[in-house]
Amino acid sequence: MTQANIGIWLIGAKGGVATTTILGLAALGKGLVDEVGLVSALPQFAHLDLPDWNDFVVAGHEIRQTRLADEAAQLAANSRAVEPKLVEKCRKELDAIDRRVRPGTIYKVGTTIGRLAGPDIPRRESPREAIRRVQEDMARFVDSRRLQHLIVVNVASTEPPMDPASIPSSWAELKPLLDRPRKCPLPASSLYAMAAMEQGYSYINFTPSLGSFPTAIDELARLRKTRHMGCDGKTGETLMKSILAPMFAQRNLQVMSWVGHNIFGNMDGKVLDDPLNKQTKVASKDHLLRKILGYRPQTHVSIEYIESLGDWKTAWDHIHFAGFLGTPMTLQFIWQGCDSLLAAPLVLDLIRFTELARRRGQTGQLKFLASFFKSPYGVEEQGFVDQFQMLQQWANATG
Amino acid sequence: MTQANIGIWLIGAKGGVATTTILGLAALGKGLVDEVGLVSALPQFAHLDLPDWNDFVVAGHEIRQTRLADEAAQLAANSRAVEPKLVEKCRKELDAIDRRVRPGTIYKVGTTIGRLAGPDIPRRESPREAIRRVQEDMARFVDSRRLQHLIVVNVASTEPPMDPASIPSSWAELKPLLDRPRKCPLPASSLYAMAAMEQGYSYINFTPSLGSFPTAIDELARLRKTRHMGCDGKTGETLMKSILAPMFAQRNLQVMSWVGHNIFGNMDGKVLDDPLNKQTKVASKDHLLRKILGYRPQTHVSIEYIESLGDWKTAWDHIHFAGFLGTPMTLQFIWQGCDSLLAAPLVLDLIRFTELARRRGQTGQLKFLASFFKSPYGVEEQGFVDQFQMLQQWANATG
Amino acid sequence: MTQANIGIWLIGAKGGVATTTILGLAALGKGLVDEVGLVSALPQFAHLDLPDWNDFVVAGHEIRQTRLADEAAQLAANSRAVEPKLVEKCRKELDAIDRRVRPGTIYKVGTTIGRLAGPDIPRRESPREAIRRVQEDMARFVDSRRLQHLIVVNVASTEPPMDPASIPSSWAELKPLLDRPRKCPLPASSLYAMAAMEQGYSYINFTPSLGSFPTAIDELARLRKTRHMGCDGKTGETLMKSILAPMFAQRNLQVMSWVGHNIFGNMDGKVLDDPLNKQTKVASKDHLLRKILGYRPQTHVSIEYIESLGDWKTAWDHIHFAGFLGTPMTLQFIWQGCDSLLAAPLVLDLIRFTELARRRGQTGQLKFLASFFKSPYGVEEQGFVDQFQMLQQWANATG
Amino acid sequence: MTQANIGIWLIGAKGGVATTTILGLAALGKGLVDEVGLVSALPQFAHLDLPDWNDFVVAGHEIRQTRLADEAAQLAANSRAVEPKLVEKCRKELDAIDRRVRPGTIYKVGTTIGRLAGPDIPRRESPREAIRRVQEDMARFVDSRRLQHLIVVNVASTEPPMDPASIPSSWAELKPLLDRPRKCPLPASSLYAMAAMEQGYSYINFTPSLGSFPTAIDELARLRKTRHMGCDGKTGETLMKSILAPMFAQRNLQVMSWVGHNIFGNMDGKVLDDPLNKQTKVASKDHLLRKILGYRPQTHVSIEYIESLGDWKTAWDHIHFAGFLGTPMTLQFIWQGCDSLLAAPLVLDLIRFTELARRRGQTGQLKFLASFFKSPYGVEEQGFVDQFQMLQQWANATG
Repeated sequence: MTQANIGIWLIGAKGGVATTTILGLAALGKGLVDEVGLVSALPQFAHLDLPDWNDFVVAGHEIRQTRLADEAAQLAANSRAVEPKLVEKCRKELDAIDRRVRPGTIYKVGTTIGRLAGPDIPRRESPREAIRRVQEDMARFVDSRRLQHLIVVNVASTEPPMDPASIPSSWAELKPLLDRPRKCPLPASSLYAMAAMEQGYSYINFTPSLGSFPTAIDELARLRKTRHMGCDGKTGETLMKSILAPMFAQRNLQVMSWVGHNIFGNMDGKVLDDPLNKQTKVASKDHLLRKILGYRPQTHVSIEYIESLGDWKTAWDHIHFAGFLGTPMTLQFIWQGCDSLLAAPLVLDLIRFTELARRRGQTGQLKFLASFFKSPYGVEEQGFVDQFQMLQQWANATG
Repeated sequence: MTQANIGIWLIGAKGGVATTTILGLAALGKGLVDEVGLVSALPQFAHLDLPDWNDFVVAGHEIRQTRLADEAAQLAANSRAVEPKLVEKCRKELDAIDRRVRPGTIYKVGTTIGRLAGPDIPRRESPREAIRRVQEDMARFVDSRRLQHLIVVNVASTEPPMDPASIPSSWAELKPLLDRPRKCPLPASSLYAMAAMEQGYSYINFTPSLGSFPTAIDELARLRKTRHMGCDGKTGETLMKSILAPMFAQRNLQVMSWVGHNIFGNMDGKVLDDPLNKQTKVASKDHLLRKILGYRPQTHVSIEYIESLGDWKTAWDHIHFAGFLGTPMTLQFIWQGCDSLLAAPLVLDLIRFTELARRRGQTGQLKFLASFFKSPYGVEEQGFVDQFQMLQQWANATG
Repeated sequence: MTQANIGIWLIGAKGGVATTTILGLAALGKGLVDEVGLVSALPQFAHLDLPDWNDFVVAGHEIRQTRLADEAAQLAANSRAVEPKLVEKCRKELDAIDRRVRPGTIYKVGTTIGRLAGPDIPRRESPREAIRRVQEDMARFVDSRRLQHLIVVNVASTEPPMDPASIPSSWAELKPLLDRPRKCPLPASSLYAMAAMEQGYSYINFTPSLGSFPTAIDELARLRKTRHMGCDGKTGETLMKSILAPMFAQRNLQVMSWVGHNIFGNMDGKVLDDPLNKQTKVASKDHLLRKILGYRPQTHVSIEYIESLGDWKTAWDHIHFAGFLGTPMTLQFIWQGCDSLLAAPLVLDLIRFTELARRRGQTGQLKFLASFFKSPYGVEEQGFVDQFQMLQQWANATG
Repeated sequence: MTQANIGIWLIGAKGGVATTTILGLAALGKGLVDEVGLVSALPQFAHLDLPDWNDFVVAGHEIRQTRLADEAAQLAANSRAVEPKLVEKCRKELDAIDRRVRPGTIYKVGTTIGRLAGPDIPRRESPREAIRRVQEDMARFVDSRRLQHLIVVNVASTEPPMDPASIPSSWAELKPLLDRPRKCPLPASSLYAMAAMEQGYSYINFTPSLGSFPTAIDELARLRKTRHMGCDGKTGETLMKSILAPMFAQRNLQVMSWVGHNIFGNMDGKVLDDPLNKQTKVASKDHLLRKILGYRPQTHVSIEYIESLGDWKTAWDHIHFAGFLGTPMTLQFIWQGCDSLLAAPLVLDLIRFTELARRRGQTGQLKFLASFFKSPYGVEEQGFVDQFQMLQQWANATG
């Protein structure tokens, strides 16, 4: 086993997705579990020189005061999502990472997220101060571990929506705003993105928050010769939409209405219970239908926090479509998936593919990762299968 | 409007699929309905010089004694599958086709189908006699209407399974058996296929019956420079399987079990209530999972005749899969589709594409039509999206 | 056939429920349909001297400008909820009732309902003026037809909620307010109730609107020796709740959460799309769980207007419960019912039972009708089976 | 804590139901879990002097060679049905019971069950010899523990069906057959019943096997002044049927078809995969609909063994019914319950109520327990709510 030399920096490092990502990485590294659920472990990617599970070392930012082992134990007890024994066997690794997690920033994250923050989280930093502090945390980790590279992944709670039109379109215009708190419209997810990419680290936005979406931040990535991608991991109901909508299109069946109700009870659900934060998420879940179908069926997406479900995201979708001679027909599906466990392997996949993209010298938006996201940056294609072919083509291209 | 000069010859010409195909074609020809549900009407095929709805004239074989208008009226009344008004408006066309439908053959169709046959259906023909009679019916239609071409489509009930190994693999060996009833293992669907293709007509097998599957019959197609394809129209639950299974594969989610229960109450359902006939169908619905997934999850497919449902095929599928860290999750879907109305537009699509293939000079198996079939002849690829790309590539190839 | 001598006066006389009630009554009177769906036609009520279908004659109030035959035809065409032929056969009856429908009142119905009103609807009446006008309409109908009795049934759209605490609790205090528009908090549904009961007519509130709920109006009923009951017909999802919740209680299974999503596309759905009107409905659908269970599980009820569904109310309920040793389990149901056709027979049942109650001399709240309502006036018992026993006991009591 | 002095003797003592019953009883006795899922713990039964959890001591017969703690651990690991920690905490109790479990009999249990039997199970006993051996096991337990009473509960796998007409209707005629193996048609479940009741013990048949159903065995119960009841615990899908069918009846909605598909993967499911054994079960699940409805809708019940589901019984029921004006509507439900954990508390309830019935001096069939069974002996009423009232009335009757 070689020395781990690639860093993973998780924003929201003790949330559900981070906890299962960390637990899974530890379990994979120790050979306790197989690679089910990992796209990067598919035979079609076996020829790639992807980093090994033991090549990674994890740290990150968090705003709540909790311990990874407690979070994992709760997933095991409340949601029966992971086996208690597995948590026990990885407890040492979890505790070690706890010590590497630093206080995050709550700049413009909205009141619902803000309320979760512990007393150690600064309340009055300017954006630039927050970025500087965050950068120091990251750099110290890179130095102390002698890491070749750091990949920053945003798995924090969804921020309220903001108007991208209010953001200057060039880095030259945006940068000075960071020193002027009243003028700077960017939320924490974007501060982390800039913090990472100013230093040449890679950045992945696994949430629907703004992150590295603005053109000016993409420009920063290219200026620093680094890379980024987002946004919003495509794990369940939206994955199904991006699979089923092309079927209706290709069979010329006319979708009249598509209703999707999502219920779940984890921390993410609690934050999304705030109508503002929910708005960001619903927009991300809803847009792809009209892109795939080429017209606008009536759609409705709801997300409700139902505490007893814990991490078990249950989605009921009702699709009402017209067939031949205008006859109305119905497809319904019920998805019962464990939210964090659907997300975690994709986070690990994204990290592995991003590291390989770095070695291949790719910068800017990593569009070949579109199949992992609900709203892939810079990609028009919304059908899952076509997006997956982009990944395969990239894999088959000579490094 | 030019003179209709392409013949459609339906085997099972008054069954549910035939009735809706005929009703739909009449309604399309008169401009009473739009082209919803028709794949060939998609924008990506608009550049093709596909035949127009009024270019076709319909006839066929049937073993039951009934009238198309009555069958259509029943679909409207019992299943509320089509509007009663539409049937009224097309009654004249339906009655005209009634007069062009000829008595079919029940050679080796099994007792359940055999029992449906009217007194005008010969009981003691040799295979060769049945073929000759059927050919005379077809030829008379072609001559009297001065048709350029005839496309024979099998939409009759599913025959019991038979062992393909019992059939000689060359046309030279198979042909003499037609005169020896005791030695000839071929069922009606294959007799029609040979009858059609000996005369150079095209043949499409929309059912899971044997049809033109045997190598010897494919050889006949190529000898006569004609074409054929099958089998078993992919309309509902299996369409869903060919859409969803690739998702599980591409996300490396391990399907542990896939259970599919189908209930419906039309004539097709009645015939499939016979365990022998059902066996043919279940095999056709079940095989693709292991081809797509690359391993054998436990599967179960049931088809039950529930009279009250009429033409409304309802399928409940329960897919149990393991995600990351081995956590079991569930996807269920409920498909409520009108069986005949899902099949009919595909029949029309197949006819239009087959006619164009003829003009392009294609012979043998028309593999580019794979996306229309549960068990496409000569095609390994079982994922719907990949199959659909075969159709698009064919469409984009210069004629 | 004797002369019809019992009047039915429908508020919202051309809405979906009224249209199907009228169509059904006409069809029953002509012997075109059987009595499926009618509780009063059950064997256990056969010994009662219930009025015959031909004993009734219908009129009512409406605020929209439309024709019953058009509404019925639309139900047949858009929702495939009734057979077109049936509408044709009853067209004469529908047209005759059209001529007996009078302009209603929109007093405090909220802006969403108000917007539906035609130009003939008075905009500036005082409550007392509206009541007087409405009473004249009813009385003219009773006189011209020499009716023994009139039963007024509210099947109009759901009004916004109002605070019952703002209403005086005695009739003596309430009555003078009717002349003082600024002080009178009562909506149209209550004006109709008072209009009817001041004249000794019976009143049934089939909607969740306020209607005859206030104590002062119940006092009026008893003063005039007439009767009333409500509210909100229990037709689908809530019927299921009142059936299933007792099962969980009696098996000591702990309901942790009960989520109910309702989608439909009729006029009722359009009005309920207004958050204010929806509030009234959701409260009526939600309260019974805690009464039946004796504790408060987390609940969520949503109602969404999905146009393509027309009259087809589809409800998905997800019930998450703890079993032995605390193990979480799930029951889900999907209800696909035709909203108006579930309501209409109950309206007819309520009318027949109310007429019999009148003959038996009953006044005030007709609590024995509890099983027909989501929120039965004056009844604590919320379980359907126990409520149904109240009906049977009443039926078995000597008149 | 007083000395435990009531014996529970489980037939199939290490199967899924027995394991969870034993685990649950141990956990209740130690105060580790609350009484969720236990009917006898409802407030309406609080006034009864029911035995306490610590009043019971468990033993039984089993044919397989396994250990209770291993079975429980498997339920925790494979099905995530119980918490691993709970198994750990009760391991001592489970091990102690292991040592009290004696080899059972496989007389006429069919080949599928027979194949599960360990080498210690006698293969050539006569029925009388089996009874005698079984009685000695029970008596030794009663003596050594100085038990006041023994309640024998059959929770073994379902036996193949047999024709009750082949069994003599009086005990006098039946008894001599026990010595004549070739003439004795009774399976193991009935031998245990006779063994128990000859000695004055109570007998409960929680399975659809024959058990104490024959008149002659009921006569034996009354002769020995003991009591019995059965059969087939009503835990999931059939419970739902007995709840929902009365709703359709009481609303006069005509059930046209009722289809129920059950899938699960525990040992019970494995045995039911044998068509013979399945026949017994399906009959028990299917009969009640026509009794409740008063007519015969088309019904279909399937039970399939799907290994990956473990103890999670999933049932999909599709109910197609006609409403007013004959309009077809649909109710579907999906039940996802943990089979053993639904059964175990009912077993404990039955034991407590049976013990109280003994103290009240009741003999013969305990019909007041009807609500616990799919096919209650001697009870015509099939609706759950009416059956539950029988239990409440019994509870309210003075002891």
